Amino acid sequence: MRIKVINPNTTLSMTEKIGASARAVAAPGTEIVAVSPQMGPVSIEGFYDEAFAAIGVIDEVLKGEAEGFDGYVIACFGDPGLQAAREIAKGPVIGIAEAAMHMATMIGGGFSIISLIERMLPVMEHLVHGYGMDHHCRSIRKTDLEVLQLEDKCSDARDIVVRECRKAIEEDGADSVLLGCAGMTDLMDYVAQEIGAPAIDGVSAAVKMVEAALSLGLGTSKRHGYAYPLPKPYTGSFSAYSPK
Amino acid sequence: MRIKVINPNTTLSMTEKIGASARAVAAPGTEIVAVSPQMGPVSIEGFYDEAFAAIGVIDEVLKGEAEGFDGYVIACFGDPGLQAAREIAKGPVIGIAEAAMHMATMIGGGFSIISLIERMLPVMEHLVHGYGMDHHCRSIRKTDLEVLQLEDKCSDARDIVVRECRKAIEEDGADSVLLGCAGMTDLMDYVAQEIGAPAIDGVSAAVKMVEAALSLGLGTSKRHGYAYPLPKPYTGSFSAYSPK
Amino acid sequence: MRIKVINPNTTLSMTEKIGASARAVAAPGTEIVAVSPQMGPVSIEGFYDEAFAAIGVIDEVLKGEAEGFDGYVIACFGDPGLQAAREIAKGPVIGIAEAAMHMATMIGGGFSIISLIERMLPVMEHLVHGYGMDHHCRSIRKTDLEVLQLEDKCSDARDIVVRECRKAIEEDGADSVLLGCAGMTDLMDYVAQEIGAPAIDGVSAAVKMVEAALSLGLGTSKRHGYAYPLPKPYTGSFSAYSPK
Amino acid sequence: MRIKVINPNTTLSMTEKIGASARAVAAPGTEIVAVSPQMGPVSIEGFYDEAFAAIGVIDEVLKGEAEGFDGYVIACFGDPGLQAAREIAKGPVIGIAEAAMHMATMIGGGFSIISLIERMLPVMEHLVHGYGMDHHCRSIRKTDLEVLQLEDKCSDARDIVVRECRKAIEEDGADSVLLGCAGMTDLMDYVAQEIGAPAIDGVSAAVKMVEAALSLGLGTSKRHGYAYPLPKPYTGSFSAYSPK
Amino acid sequence: MRIKVINPNTTLSMTEKIGASARAVAAPGTEIVAVSPQMGPVSIEGFYDEAFAAIGVIDEVLKGEAEGFDGYVIACFGDPGLQAAREIAKGPVIGIAEAAMHMATMIGGGFSIISLIERMLPVMEHLVHGYGMDHHCRSIRKTDLEVLQLEDKCSDARDIVVRECRKAIEEDGADSVLLGCAGMTDLMDYVAQEIGAPAIDGVSAAVKMVEAALSLGLGTSKRHGYAYPLPKPYTGSFSAYSPK
Amino acid sequence: MRIKVINPNTTLSMTEKIGASARAVAAPGTEIVAVSPQMGPVSIEGFYDEAFAAIGVIDEVLKGEAEGFDGYVIACFGDPGLQAAREIAKGPVIGIAEAAMHMATMIGGGFSIISLIERMLPVMEHLVHGYGMDHHCRSIRKTDLEVLQLEDKCSDARDIVVRECRKAIEEDGADSVLLGCAGMTDLMDYVAQEIGAPAIDGVSAAVKMVEAALSLGLGTSKRHGYAYPLPKPYTGSFSAYSPK
Repeated sequence: MRIKVINPNTTLSMTEKIGASARAVAAPGTEIVAVSPQMGPVSIEGFYDEAFAAIGVIDEVLKGEAEGFDGYVIACFGDPGLQAAREIAKGPVIGIAEAAMHMATMIGGGFSIISLIERMLPVMEHLVHGYGMDHHCRSIRKTDLEVLQLEDKCSDARDIVVRECRKAIEEDGADSVLLGCAGMTDLMDYVAQEIGAPAIDGVSAAVKMVEAALSLGLGTSKRHGYAYPLPKPYTGSFSAYSPK
Repeated sequence: MRIKVINPNTTLSMTEKIGASARAVAAPGTEIVAVSPQMGPVSIEGFYDEAFAAIGVIDEVLKGEAEGFDGYVIACFGDPGLQAAREIAKGPVIGIAEAAMHMATMIGGGFSIISLIERMLPVMEHLVHGYGMDHHCRSIRKTDLEVLQLEDKCSDARDIVVRECRKAIEEDGADSVLLGCAGMTDLMDYVAQEIGAPAIDGVSAAVKMVEAALSLGLGTSKRHGYAYPLPKPYTGSFSAYSPK
Repeated sequence: MRIKVINPNTTLSMTEKIGASARAVAAPGTEIVAVSPQMGPVSIEGFYDEAFAAIGVIDEVLKGEAEGFDGYVIACFGDPGLQAAREIAKGPVIGIAEAAMHMATMIGGGFSIISLIERMLPVMEHLVHGYGMDHHCRSIRKTDLEVLQLEDKCSDARDIVVRECRKAIEEDGADSVLLGCAGMTDLMDYVAQEIGAPAIDGVSAAVKMVEAALSLGLGTSKRHGYAYPLPKPYTGSFSAYSPK
Repeated sequence: MRIKVINPNTTLSMTEKIGASARAVAAPGTEIVAVSPQMGPVSIEGFYDEAFAAIGVIDEVLKGEAEGFDGYVIACFGDPGLQAAREIAKGPVIGIAEAAMHMATMIGGGFSIISLIERMLPVMEHLVHGYGMDHHCRSIRKTDLEVLQLEDKCSDARDIVVRECRKAIEEDGADSVLLGCAGMTDLMDYVAQEIGAPAIDGVSAAVKMVEAALSLGLGTSKRHGYAYPLPKPYTGSFSAYSPK
Repeated sequence: MRIKVINPNTTLSMTEKIGASARAVAAPGTEIVAVSPQMGPVSIEGFYDEAFAAIGVIDEVLKGEAEGFDGYVIACFGDPGLQAAREIAKGPVIGIAEAAMHMATMIGGGFSIISLIERMLPVMEHLVHGYGMDHHCRSIRKTDLEVLQLEDKCSDARDIVVRECRKAIEEDGADSVLLGCAGMTDLMDYVAQEIGAPAIDGVSAAVKMVEAALSLGLGTSKRHGYAYPLPKPYTGSFSAYSPK
Repeated sequence: MRIKVINPNTTLSMTEKIGASARAVAAPGTEIVAVSPQMGPVSIEGFYDEAFAAIGVIDEVLKGEAEGFDGYVIACFGDPGLQAAREIAKGPVIGIAEAAMHMATMIGGGFSIISLIERMLPVMEHLVHGYGMDHHCRSIRKTDLEVLQLEDKCSDARDIVVRECRKAIEEDGADSVLLGCAGMTDLMDYVAQEIGAPAIDGVSAAVKMVEAALSLGLGTSKRHGYAYPLPKPYTGSFSAYSPK
């Protein structure tokens, strides 16, 4: 099976890191192609960035359908464009936030999310409520880090992440922590070892969820919620996106 | 005060109708400018259409800020782009679905939404849940009509709308009905008279809500949820939208 | 249009202050009449006071209907008598707590309420839950002040209010604060400037909401929830209130 | 122990019937005194009636405290004045709606409420939500009967009640039915036998709940929610009710 | 009436203490028989212990039905086996956690639960959510005590319990506290006096609730949720439990 | 990896069917061992059966830990013993009801559950609420079939299942259907084809979820909710289950 892992931002170094994580957990027969949209924000921090990233995600899914991909991962912890992408995909489309949350409830009781930046908290709160996770989410904690700091070997960024994760377990009563940014995708094992509790990377979780759905012959339901878009003209610069 | 009423689809006849409704309820000192985005879907039916309409809404709000508008109405009953638009606006940005729901709870107990088409039901269900209206929403009913049929004097489209509204009151226990499409904006009085209960047009409600906020000196809060987007480059065809 | 603003307690100095706030935001054509009931508590702090204040509110609405008022504001942050008053009014009846909460969700994400006194917290918690605002209300904070202290220029009462509002924004993650007592109606601008975030006065918000409803031709729905009371005799000292 | 059972309406024949039911289930050492307020509505159908009935309830509790009663039952399925009455009572004050709902969840899964008249449905819906019973309440059904019809031996009123109760069990999946009006207090056994499932009369349930609380030495908590009213003057015709 | 009070663990000293508490509050005509199962955990701390305790509870209820008991109390604050036991009992079966929570909402607003040990917190959180008490439960606090320490006159265990109860009232805003372990059954009066607020012992509360149900002629509903188990063979060591 | 699939009832023909389904979707490297407990009910219909089945599940997990299994599936749509089993397992333990529900929300909007028998509805309602799926579950439908009828080629049992599934899609607005009994595990493809929408078999879904967790190195969190049971003696016939 072929899975397109879409990093909704346009920072290619991060796309590579995400691709590496995805490939590391993919099943033998799974081909992972990690991409970034051709346009959009270099990083995603808030609803405005999400709106543009959603179009980038849609663009990649449209192309992916033509390229014969079987399923998709949206690799940003705000799950941008998830619902729209589902309308145009035959196969499953799964966001890393939802995948991480669903997985968390199956290997523990309550979970906490660690967000790198404060600006994503309102986005995540909407997702938690929308996914029915109000009773499972113990807290959403934040650091004041940027993704790039995680790459800097001399920085204490990883220590800061671990410290917040530890507080989530010890002060907030979480059973597990969710790494609330695709940029932390390579920290899953490190954090888990440091805190002595499961740390869940959404990228990895979503890849396995898409594989799971495909193994069961499940694609996105085309009844009600995510039926194909009704054919109609789009005007102006979006005319190429007119549903047929 | 100057309010930009954004019809998120690109059908100008509908934009005019929406503008007329908005002007009909606007306060003496209020200038209403009704616009459609320069690009996007001609009608909005589902999450895919909403994603593109959101960019159109953002585009109009960005221009609106430069043009000196004080507030904005998003005139589609799915409130597309609402949260993103709030990040870039100094003044209030209010969607017609939220305006109608909030108004309904202040002039009655439970309400029902009448959607023209089935494809908008999942979108509306998300809004109802997100806005905390689960206990106030009695039902979301649909017709199988298209907006244009409402214009056809010979069609029985209006009767069909009235029939569903009546069922909402009599069978579902609603105190009021919400006209779940900006294309029904001119039916408010007609429906209300026919069913003997309040019918709420979101366009009209949202205009008054924006006026209300502005009269109180209230704009969109710039703390937490809707702070201005962080400056960053956007790549490709979206580069013009890079937050400064 | 003529709006009766009912201060449910019988402290006339506060009624005047409330009237002044209402007039300050009222539209040009709006006549504001601020009144207190002829009987009842001098201040409202808890469910017992609310029960008596409700009768005072009802009394003023009954008289208001005879006097030709178009709508009503209930100017106590516990919204006493709101549902009963709706049954007897043709036009809209809006409480300052509900008006403030609805407005808050349209200009920000989460809000906090600042109560002057602890005794109103249980009342407010009931309202938050009943209005479906559980997910929007970040916190209800209290001071240990009395209304009169706010009038005393030498007291540090205003500083205390501002301090709690600031904590709501910075510690509780609120986007805006609601001034949880009609006695703070004149602090809206001052608090907003001090904390750099919207402060919402319910009196002002409710006046604009009533105006909005009336502009749309909306009165209280007479179907189901708030139909006119069924005619019946009331005995004893309440016989004058028998519904006809 | 002495329990005052307050019928919040002023129809004495109903008060007698309520008193008889209460005495029939009271423990040997319990003295039941059934009263009606000296003023107020002859029947309670909606929020307006409830507001006046609340004052009647308060009046009887105030007198009851002087008379040395140990606890109180509020015998109307809208629980009028419950929260206010708790503030002024040392002992427990329990409404028949809450008593019936709590009892129902301990002898079955979901329950349905049978209301005599439609006008009480919105009141009951508020109670169900406020008491946290959303997930246990299967339905609220209504008849179009009046209380007096239940007394008429020639009428088919009882059959109509039984029919709705049966539908609640068979169509709505309820495990038990709550008789949603104190006027049905004598139908508990009859209905239960007819439908082959528990029928719960709130008057009986509340008497036992008050006895239970008193047996445990429990009165109304005077911390936070229901502390005694703060001393203050009440003006006009309510001056006698000023909290000391 | 005869009530079997089942201590789901097999520590007989605790069973005696529970029996004493039950008898202390039982009505004159009530016979209390306190028992422990013949097999199972000596103490209950978590879901694993609960699963085995449930079988012990079932075993005692099965025997109880043959012995002619009228009702049952399950005396562990996790209510183990409650739903299964209801299927096989004609009369009421009530858990001490549910009894305490229901009672708490009738004599106060919000409550807190004091758990002796941390391991019971997840169990209690499930119960709070399942019983619809999310809005009434202010907090679940824990100590690091063991039941036996409460017996030791020289230990400061009681002081620790009182300290947490006080924090629940003063910091968490609870109106009452629930003693979250049957081992604290004898502390009800002591704690209440120390903290100046109601302390509710579930054992006592449940005995009164069973008596209340029986006085009203109410047993467990046999429609839907708790109908008798369908006859079928059980294999192996559980064959004696095959429903007939 | 080695996964033990536990059919909680003791009907071996069903265990074989479940094993076949599990093996059909398992990844190449996965060894599936399908077992039934040595004791317990031959079929599971209600809370009583669930209580005994839970012990059987625990027994198999305890043995499984000694046998070196990496993860477990509980193959009954009531997820019996799930929480207890998690306490004693190092690896993931996943129920078929939860797996099916989580999967459903990732490939569609709302889902419906089709239960073979009515007796499981209350069990399923508890799970839906506990898993936070209230907003995603459109309905729980039932047939009046028994598992064995599905095996009978001459019966119209399959048609009846399909008919209810179709109603779920068309009348209840579900996007997908969950086959609410492990006995329907072989109907997934057939039903999906007949109704033109995804049908989800929990056995298959749970196997993939366990594989997914294991691929990510995730076992059951041992912090808080599902830590290993505290060591203590169990008495009587359960002494062999004493936690060490």
